[in-house]
Amino acid sequence: MAMDDAPKPHFVLVPLMAQGHMIPMADFALLLVSRGSRVSLITTPVNARRLRAVANRGGDNLRLVELSMPCAEFGLPEGCENVDLVRQPELFIPFFNCIRRLEDQLNRYLREQPPAPTCIIADQCMPWTMEVANDLGIPRFVFHCPSCFYLLCTLRIAEHELYEKVSDPCEAFFVPGLPQLPQRIEVNKLKAQRFLDVPDLDLLRHVQEADATADGIVLNTCYEFEPWCVDDYRGALGKEVWPVGPVSLIHKDTGGKVVRGDGSAGVDHSGVSQWLDGREPGSVLFISFGSIARTLFRQQVEIGNALEATGRPFLWAMKEAEKGDLVEEWLAEFEERNRGNGIIVKGWVPQVLILTHPAVGCFMTHCGWNSTLEAVAAGVPMVTWPHFADQFLNEKLVVDILRTGVSVGVKAPFFYMAAGDDALVKSEAVERAVESIMGGVEGEKIRRRARKFAEKASKVMEEGGSSKDNLDRMIDYTINLATGNYKANGRATALC
Amino acid sequence: MAMDDAPKPHFVLVPLMAQGHMIPMADFALLLVSRGSRVSLITTPVNARRLRAVANRGGDNLRLVELSMPCAEFGLPEGCENVDLVRQPELFIPFFNCIRRLEDQLNRYLREQPPAPTCIIADQCMPWTMEVANDLGIPRFVFHCPSCFYLLCTLRIAEHELYEKVSDPCEAFFVPGLPQLPQRIEVNKLKAQRFLDVPDLDLLRHVQEADATADGIVLNTCYEFEPWCVDDYRGALGKEVWPVGPVSLIHKDTGGKVVRGDGSAGVDHSGVSQWLDGREPGSVLFISFGSIARTLFRQQVEIGNALEATGRPFLWAMKEAEKGDLVEEWLAEFEERNRGNGIIVKGWVPQVLILTHPAVGCFMTHCGWNSTLEAVAAGVPMVTWPHFADQFLNEKLVVDILRTGVSVGVKAPFFYMAAGDDALVKSEAVERAVESIMGGVEGEKIRRRARKFAEKASKVMEEGGSSKDNLDRMIDYTINLATGNYKANGRATALC
Repeated sequence: MAMDDAPKPHFVLVPLMAQGHMIPMADFALLLVSRGSRVSLITTPVNARRLRAVANRGGDNLRLVELSMPCAEFGLPEGCENVDLVRQPELFIPFFNCIRRLEDQLNRYLREQPPAPTCIIADQCMPWTMEVANDLGIPRFVFHCPSCFYLLCTLRIAEHELYEKVSDPCEAFFVPGLPQLPQRIEVNKLKAQRFLDVPDLDLLRHVQEADATADGIVLNTCYEFEPWCVDDYRGALGKEVWPVGPVSLIHKDTGGKVVRGDGSAGVDHSGVSQWLDGREPGSVLFISFGSIARTLFRQQVEIGNALEATGRPFLWAMKEAEKGDLVEEWLAEFEERNRGNGIIVKGWVPQVLILTHPAVGCFMTHCGWNSTLEAVAAGVPMVTWPHFADQFLNEKLVVDILRTGVSVGVKAPFFYMAAGDDALVKSEAVERAVESIMGGVEGEKIRRRARKFAEKASKVMEEGGSSKDNLDRMIDYTINLATGNYKANGRATALC
Repeated sequence: MAMDDAPKPHFVLVPLMAQGHMIPMADFALLLVSRGSRVSLITTPVNARRLRAVANRGGDNLRLVELSMPCAEFGLPEGCENVDLVRQPELFIPFFNCIRRLEDQLNRYLREQPPAPTCIIADQCMPWTMEVANDLGIPRFVFHCPSCFYLLCTLRIAEHELYEKVSDPCEAFFVPGLPQLPQRIEVNKLKAQRFLDVPDLDLLRHVQEADATADGIVLNTCYEFEPWCVDDYRGALGKEVWPVGPVSLIHKDTGGKVVRGDGSAGVDHSGVSQWLDGREPGSVLFISFGSIARTLFRQQVEIGNALEATGRPFLWAMKEAEKGDLVEEWLAEFEERNRGNGIIVKGWVPQVLILTHPAVGCFMTHCGWNSTLEAVAAGVPMVTWPHFADQFLNEKLVVDILRTGVSVGVKAPFFYMAAGDDALVKSEAVERAVESIMGGVEGEKIRRRARKFAEKASKVMEEGGSSKDNLDRMIDYTINLATGNYKANGRATALC
């Protein structure tokens, strides 16, 4: 099935408007197009500008659909269409309430614009797509952005009602119901938070209902990285679960790796590539903490001191700390001292391009799942530095289960204005973690394990690979739903 | 000394621009004026509007001085002159950096405008006043807004380097160096945070230096509430420590109690007073969580359910939760159901007026020190519900040491967007805490202890009372410094 002469399904992809959610969904759209499907990628004008370049790679079969968010009506600044544009904590709830307004627009669009939709695949954070799919009488899959390990752990904690029973967010407990694991996973509620579990947001229950009623689950991971997690998760849900990732592997060439993310940023990657080309294989430490976490100035100084202590070449993707003479001065002097040995890049960097460059030997990461997965797929070992959300459980996966990383030692989520000066990770700890990966005999074991995962990853998208098979199975499943009558409502879903 | 014919010192009071810091400093200004001193109360235009009404009560001897914050230069919105106007977390550091710019203005003002200053008394959060006092060659006292118990505990933790040695913010430990206490005080770093201990703010070291070099320490507490804390704290610092509070007791009449806080709010207190007049003595539960903490809608519902379960009369000072049909609807129905038995007041309430009303029998509070102190002084027992900062240690003081309160059971600071739905305090817990104070035999013991503190408080400001004596000692000390030569710099400080 899913051949050129076979009927083409039309998938409607609905990502959450957040950088870490749009990027994998756009990659997934390209994957579907590469398998002969049509895709409508639903977004808004501000986000469409970021997605345009990568969407263009999908050709005529990938359509970017711009719905409009009524920001003003919810007290949001005009154009506040992405999580990274929400600057005041109290605007998060209005932001999500505003997103909910896309429901009617999407419903209308899908009824009016041919080709008719075959199936909706929506981010877990967009549960209102359930109402759209129900109303149109078409199947709906949930696309999960976190790791399967995170999904399974939080599911087990919820099943055992530990989110309710453990009242102290600091109280340590073991994640129950993980018999396949040789060791136990100790967490507390701060380190095992569920997405969108915010009082008043009133979204978690909706998310849980949408998860429970979905026709299938798509995961951005591959079976080889988390085999027993996928098995257990599928068993727990009792429905189809398709690990189809790492979706970033759709990009084989430099062009694709560069336009991923923010295609509107007009990144000049050539300087970075040239610099990496001049370094020894496996010699460079790459540092990036993702699109949301912000590194405080004094923490930057600790990292900088660690880099100088190791003497290793580094590529540091730095977000702007607060402005000030002190900051400018330190940065200028630091860059001057390290000229030739390290570079600092501000703003968006082509992360997959960097991680897949042979010069890169270690990745210091916040453990967002996209970053983690890209590093595992590229065979790059990690210094893990989680900040919040699923990142602490992703760290556990990397350090304790995959054993391709070393923790820098963060003990609790970072809350701006609530973290004391003593919450800084000191340069000695940073240096120790880097050296335990990039140097020594133990480091070589970690590096070897990391390379093994790259070998596995190199096959999953190829003929006979698990993720390719899963994607085909998912498409076939959709076609079967479409050619039969979908569920009890008697309406056939459409194929192009 | 400090009589009408004696020389009058001119105190320069510099509060932090935050509601919980300006209110006690303004009360303290009135106290000083009542003892015959002149006072210049330093602030900015936006805050001057809030302080005008209370400052007017000081007559000619209390001058409100408006310096200007160069907000735009620091990327702050125009008029962003109070902590409660800082809406984006990343603007806190620019806000404090901007405040620092008042140093030169204050220095110039004090040199140019007669009468010459005798002594600066500055909030702990305004350490740059050290440079002004040094430059002018005049003494400087630090005015502390938290409880002495909090100051002593955080001092002991710092002395024993536990802020550095305990890396996990969740790890429980006992506050060291409190031999006078029969029981040990268990905390973790989340519950024992120091003010302004924020990486990059770079203020904590400055604060510590300004504390160490101050000529004396003024506390808004009275010796009778925390006797051994004051003794130990004085011993630890090795300098003059004057507990002169509760400064709110300066307001004997309704007028003063009403204009405290935000004098520009134009509060109509008569409805509240009349309603309280119609209630039985000790029958009313008063609920308020201060000027910063925001109660989420779903939490409001839990509180509302608890109130209805107890059936007790209530006065609820409610800050606006997020907007929405659901919220409006619930509130309208709740008010309708409870008409006659309870009232909800939105916006600023005259808290001291309410707490000193005989109808009020219990106070559900966030344990900010001003609120806590006002309740102790009024003899009102508390349901303690700390949110952040010093509030957890204030709760310990009330529940474990004064034993005039019952904890609602909050385990960790509340962080917006990071608190799960399970972080809500359930209505049963709220009801239980309220009933354990307002009902039963054990409740009567708590209520009796609370009344004892009101008796003590009623004497501290009178002739022979400890706080009056301390204030006189502080003024005499200042005059002695002024009439002798101040320190080694050979300059005499001025008296009017």
